[in-house]
This record gives sequence, C-alpha cells and structure tokens, in this order.
Amino acid sequence: MLLHTIKEVREQVKEWKKEGLTVGLVPTMGALHNGHLSLIKKAVEKCDKVVVSVFVNPIQFCPGEDLDKYPRTLEADTKLCNDAGVSIVFAPSPSEMYGQSEMRTNDFLTYVIPPFFYVNKLCGKSRVGHFDGVCTVVNKLFNIVQPDFAFFGQKDAQQLIIIKKMVKDLNIPVDIVPCPIVREESGLALSSRNKYLSEEDKKEALVLSKILNNIKDCYKKGITDVEALKETAFQFLTDKHELEYLELLDCEDLEEKKIADNNTRVFIACKVGGVRLIDNILLGE
Amino acid sequence: MLLHTIKEVREQVKEWKKEGLTVGLVPTMGALHNGHLSLIKKAVEKCDKVVVSVFVNPIQFCPGEDLDKYPRTLEADTKLCNDAGVSIVFAPSPSEMYGQSEMRTNDFLTYVIPPFFYVNKLCGKSRVGHFDGVCTVVNKLFNIVQPDFAFFGQKDAQQLIIIKKMVKDLNIPVDIVPCPIVREESGLALSSRNKYLSEEDKKEALVLSKILNNIKDCYKKGITDVEALKETAFQFLTDKHELEYLELLDCEDLEEKKIADNNTRVFIACKVGGVRLIDNILLGE
Repeated sequence: MLLHTIKEVREQVKEWKKEGLTVGLVPTMGALHNGHLSLIKKAVEKCDKVVVSVFVNPIQFCPGEDLDKYPRTLEADTKLCNDAGVSIVFAPSPSEMYGQSEMRTNDFLTYVIPPFFYVNKLCGKSRVGHFDGVCTVVNKLFNIVQPDFAFFGQKDAQQLIIIKKMVKDLNIPVDIVPCPIVREESGLALSSRNKYLSEEDKKEALVLSKILNNIKDCYKKGITDVEALKETAFQFLTDKHELEYLELLDCEDLEEKKIADNNTRVFIACKVGGVRLIDNILLGE
Repeated sequence: MLLHTIKEVREQVKEWKKEGLTVGLVPTMGALHNGHLSLIKKAVEKCDKVVVSVFVNPIQFCPGEDLDKYPRTLEADTKLCNDAGVSIVFAPSPSEMYGQSEMRTNDFLTYVIPPFFYVNKLCGKSRVGHFDGVCTVVNKLFNIVQPDFAFFGQKDAQQLIIIKKMVKDLNIPVDIVPCPIVREESGLALSSRNKYLSEEDKKEALVLSKILNNIKDCYKKGITDVEALKETAFQFLTDKHELEYLELLDCEDLEEKKIADNNTRVFIACKVGGVRLIDNILLGE
C-alpha cells in the first residue's frame, strides 16, 4: 500500500496496534537495492507489519550536494516492497514533512541535534549539518510510525551509531536493529550512489574494500598500532582515488584508538570518478 | 505511587495501555502550588491515569541561576498528588535522566533544539540554552511516559508556544493542553519562585499584573498602537522594579506586532527584590 500522508499512516498503524501487532520501520531515501532489501527482509521476518519510508530528506543534504540529482525510482521501489511483503510504503512530499521550504532552517524548525563529539569526525566533518537532518527526520518518522523496531544498515556506520545514541539519550521507545553491509561479489559495498559510477570507476571503487580487508588481515596477524595499520593503505591508492578519511575508532562511542582491538571499526571515505563512497569494517568480526 | 526509575514507569504505563486507558502527563519541577494543582486537576478529569513528573532539570538552568537553591519539597508534592488522584509521581535523579553530570553538554548528549526565531526573544534572550534544556527534557518525558495528553501552564507562555511548536515539527503523538494562569487574590501569578519573595516584595511584585491589566484595559478602550500601549507601563515602575522586557507578540508564532489585536499576547519579566518574575496576558480574552 503506497501512502503519501502522515495522517493515513497513523490511522493504519493505530489499527495494527489495536490488534496487538508489532510494527517495523525501514527508513530509506528510495533507489532501493539489495542492501535495502536485506533490511526489509529482516524486518518482514521479525515484525507482523512493516513500513518502508521512501523520502529524499532535503535537510540532510548540504549545499552543493546531490539533492536534485539523487536517484528517485518510487515505482520500482514500491513494486520491490510489495513483492517483499511490506505493508506500507510511506512516500511523503517534502512539504508534508516540513511545510514550506523557506521554513526548513533552524530559525523556524525544531531540530534534533546529535552530540558534537559524535558528529565532528568522519562524514560529519565534510557534511556539516548532515546528521542534524538525519536525526531530525528519523525522530519524525519514529513519531509518525511509532514502530517497535527500526532497521538501519551498518554501511552508514556513523549514522547508525548516532541514531543509537539519539535513541538512548532521548529515551525513544524503539529497538534499533543493525543490519550487515551487503556487497557485490567484487567486494564493493552496495550504495544508491553506485549508480553514478562508470564501469571503470566501479573497478577503481574496489580500493575501499581492499584497504579495509587488508587492515583487518594485518590486525589478525598481530599488528595493532593504528598508525602502522593506516599506513598499509597507501599501496592501494593511485591518482584515481581521492581519500577523504581513513580512521580507526571505537565502534560504540567513536573514541579515537591508538591501539586497535576487537571493538575497533575502520572507517573509510574516498572519491572515485567524482563520486563519494564510504565503507567500514569491524576488526573483531 | 512514587517511582524513581524510567523502567518502573514504562512497565506501569504499558499495563495501562494494554487495558486501553488514556494517560495524562503533568511535567513539573516540584515545589507544587495551586497553579500546578489546577493542571493536575484538569489532567485527572480528562485522563484515566495521570503521571506527574517532579524533576528539577539541571540542563535548563543557565550558569548563575538558582539550580542549587531551587525549592525541593518532594514529600509534600507526593502527598498533594496522591490526594488529587494522581497515579504516579515520577521523581528521577539527574543521573537516571542523563547519566554522569560531565556528559550533559551538547558535546556528549543529543539535544532537541527549538527554532531560533522562537527562542531569540523574551526569556530566551537572558536565559541562553534554557529552552534547549526544556525541549530536551520534555521530549524525554514524552518518550518515557508516552502520554495521550500533556498539561502545561499558560504562565510560562513562551515555553508553551515552543513545546507546541516542537510537537508539531517533530510529529510527536501527544495532545498539548494549555491551562490558564492561577493568581492570588491580589493578582500575583503563582510561581514556585514566589517563595523567595519577602512580604514587602510580594506587594511590589503586583506591578507585573497591574501593567498587564492596564495594557489590556487600554486596548479594550481602543488603543492598538503597540508603542503607546507599552508606554502606559512606566507609571507603575519604581526603583524597586528591574524591568527585563515588556513585549506584545503574536500568541502563536511570537511574531512582533506594531498594531495590537485579539491574538496579541503581552509578555513581561521583571525583577523584584532580586527575584525574577514573569507574567503574561492575552488581549483578546
């Protein structure tokens, strides 16, 4: 069932709650691929009813980012959801979510702001305000759908950590279910932005997973010094790759590590052919 | 029933929801007086079950404010609530709500931040960060109690407007019920901070309601020019009164008014004997 208004979603969910059914939410920006599908499958397994939101959230895009050209494929997304057993695809307009566009700044809109310590690193460093937009829209979706469970991909690892922190800090009554990264056979992590990559770029994009896997191999062989582990990356990088960051941080609180351990997550962001890609791996897995 | 932990409150509310009962929340900082009691009575009338939270919220006090000396009278508050038919008094510790005290800054804690346009005036001008603390704790209480209705006094008019805006912006599934100001026979608006006033100060404190009533009288007689209305205040002010602000703003969106109308609210803050007092009146009432 494809719904566009908050009111319709609320009415439907209210019926379900009356019947004592559990509700799962999978928040997405659409352009669904097998990564999303793995979240959706998990939700359908775990919950009586599943809502997938499809909303390209304007307030999480920074000036100069790809808001306008971000892929929008609602018809295909809806079919995919229906086939997977989703009960509601919720695809609101920006004005349904935020009212008039000129009112979407923090001058006129209440924002949910994640802690600076969690935001002031990795993607948050270059994407100023991005996680404010993410937390605000996820908070709204939680309030609209009131799910028992919400499913997020490990691919956006910093986002997942920040959402978990928001849920804890604000006592939000939703269980967050993390879902593992889905990869192509080549190792490339699935992303809606992969659509921007040429065939040649796609090969070059393997540098991210290669660097991560190599660091994990080195760690398993006994290297724990973070600087030494980071240095192993340079052999893979050429002028086709514009490295934005490579960091080893605690997987729960994003504290910087000098000595890697099993709770260390390796985070990488790198531009390939002008497309910004991210990936990550947990050393203790 | 006096409860101190989030877990206990959640479990009790869950039982009520299963039985299909409606839940009302009255958030307070304790030191309950007849103003609070009017909110509690309204809640008990309207809802099957009522939760009164008693929590002196550290993150809504600014440096130099009266956090430590703010009156704490939990025993009396609990008795008053029990007598009034309240089901739960929820009195958490600061660490139950926020964890360790050094982690309560926006470096380490997710905050709910109301819009700058609503905050950058009236009490928000002198009490920097105050409404961030208010919105964050109210959001947490809403998530903990999940009430159908929440009751707020018109006395803290800017707070009420900001809470209503937060509920709208974040799609929070709670109905906000505003409750009229309760006054002493003299006209003095009830406030927990009235306890700080000497008998003489209490007489001087009548200046607030006198100024507001006079402005309303002048408006009813046909004066609508805001500057002219504000000027009528000066006849009441002496060196016993330290006026902080006197503003005529739209009662919904706090837009400044040049010409007063029925939707104009008059807001005043004034120090008397070193105690900061606030009051307000709607012209169209």
